[in-house]
Amino acid sequence: MPEKESIKITEVGPRDGLQNEYKPVSTSDKFEFIRLLGLSGIQCIEATSFVKPGAIPQLSDASVLSEKLNFQSGITYSALAPNKKGYETAIQFGYREIAIFTAASNSFTKKNINKTIQESIEIFLDISKQAVLDKIKVRAYISTVVACPYEGIISPSSVLEVAKQLLDQGVYEISLGETIGVAVPNQVEDLLTTLFGKFSPSLFAGHFHDTYGMAIANAAKSLEMGIRSFDSSAGGLGGCPYAPGAAGNVATEDLVYFLENSGYSTGIDLNKVMDASAFISQKIERNLISKTYLALQSRCESVALS
Amino acid sequence: MPEKESIKITEVGPRDGLQNEYKPVSTSDKFEFIRLLGLSGIQCIEATSFVKPGAIPQLSDASVLSEKLNFQSGITYSALAPNKKGYETAIQFGYREIAIFTAASNSFTKKNINKTIQESIEIFLDISKQAVLDKIKVRAYISTVVACPYEGIISPSSVLEVAKQLLDQGVYEISLGETIGVAVPNQVEDLLTTLFGKFSPSLFAGHFHDTYGMAIANAAKSLEMGIRSFDSSAGGLGGCPYAPGAAGNVATEDLVYFLENSGYSTGIDLNKVMDASAFISQKIERNLISKTYLALQSRCESVALS
Repeated sequence: MPEKESIKITEVGPRDGLQNEYKPVSTSDKFEFIRLLGLSGIQCIEATSFVKPGAIPQLSDASVLSEKLNFQSGITYSALAPNKKGYETAIQFGYREIAIFTAASNSFTKKNINKTIQESIEIFLDISKQAVLDKIKVRAYISTVVACPYEGIISPSSVLEVAKQLLDQGVYEISLGETIGVAVPNQVEDLLTTLFGKFSPSLFAGHFHDTYGMAIANAAKSLEMGIRSFDSSAGGLGGCPYAPGAAGNVATEDLVYFLENSGYSTGIDLNKVMDASAFISQKIERNLISKTYLALQSRCESVALS
Repeated sequence: MPEKESIKITEVGPRDGLQNEYKPVSTSDKFEFIRLLGLSGIQCIEATSFVKPGAIPQLSDASVLSEKLNFQSGITYSALAPNKKGYETAIQFGYREIAIFTAASNSFTKKNINKTIQESIEIFLDISKQAVLDKIKVRAYISTVVACPYEGIISPSSVLEVAKQLLDQGVYEISLGETIGVAVPNQVEDLLTTLFGKFSPSLFAGHFHDTYGMAIANAAKSLEMGIRSFDSSAGGLGGCPYAPGAAGNVATEDLVYFLENSGYSTGIDLNKVMDASAFISQKIERNLISKTYLALQSRCESVALS
């Protein structure tokens, strides 16, 4: 049997997932969640965000949590850094990869971080220069790559323009954030066609939210077009904290099920991801909505798929 | 703007959905559910099944329910008929379309209807001859088209063999049942490539269960390959009745959201499907898991998509 092609999975549950969960999670429970995720074979975990204290209460323990992480474990832990100060704090704790973020919509960056796209990119220029000297890898998020809650549909050329500037700064990967989970595969195809006209697919990751249940279909289209890196959250954590049942990030379980059964290798043990999901589900006191998680948990049927 | 291509949706919630729901639903509530579905613009509704009394308790009121349906309404109501007697009963009530069913796996037909595939096809031969004389349209289900809970993976050539025989009998459409909801788009692609090597895509419908969250991705692949007819259940009714939260049929809401935003027309008003879903959700006393339903219901964000 030929060796399967590998897909990179970045687990964003501890950061993007939890920041959208209403119920506060203690630092030690976050640490245990991250530990369980690591046991599943996940190689890249976005652990937290060094935003201004108070901006995101759920992530206000970024420093205490980061102190507990073992940066020698072979797992790549990353943290979001909104500015130079956040970057410096992160690398003091031992992070060797940080993530910066902007969006393809000015209204979104304005509401989110009170800056225009251009202003946010200028801040990151400062970080990226330092990161080269420090040998720190920088990953960038572009949010609202298909649609923005304030501006509606975003044109692929707007995303291309932002991507160009970020790649010029030396980010090694751009995570394309379909932040509000409204896109359908056609729209993802249009976006990727535009981006891949200028840049290699290997420079991009797919970051799909599953608000309308389209995330796996969008991941399938991205995979078909050459994307080999995806972000996901264990159990499908996140979503809109005030809307019970509304979906968040695409679930790691659904994504791994899809990829492994499509002939790719993720190196991730589904049952062990489910242990992490079951743990965090208890802590946030709500049921998770990953369909693969629910199906495997209830073992409604069992089929040997290979 | 050019006219959009139409997609046929067959709502199977009252039959395939409810038959997998544990909580009994009264005939008048089923009738109200069907009435609300009709108001949404859905043109084809599979109302019930004329199986042996007692075989499926939830559908044992097939006759009483069918008496209440208005077959002059312009909506095509259909019913499942497992044999000639079921067929005759159905047409007495006024059905002008019936559905027959078999599978691509002998183990499945044996467990399901205690017949081999071949035995089941012979019974339907009897029905289909009469249907020609009666000018009744016959639709056929082939279950387990990708995988069987007893046999594992099913080869596309097994499905082709069954499809050939059914089309020879004059069925006007074959609904390809991915009964256990384990398939990924690659597998659907292999199946359709085999079938479309011999037959037109217009002879087939996609019937995807969402057990592992792959249904929309499978529908997207099918659409890309030429399928223009899909089955779905309002709210994603059904699933495994003893596994809380496990997914059933692909949700009508998710499917309509996907198709309408992909540039196709279904003629269906999403908000009105949600009225039907909300109604039946109360009656079965459980929350539905359609992500589009949950997203629109909670209005976490609102984006003009067109």
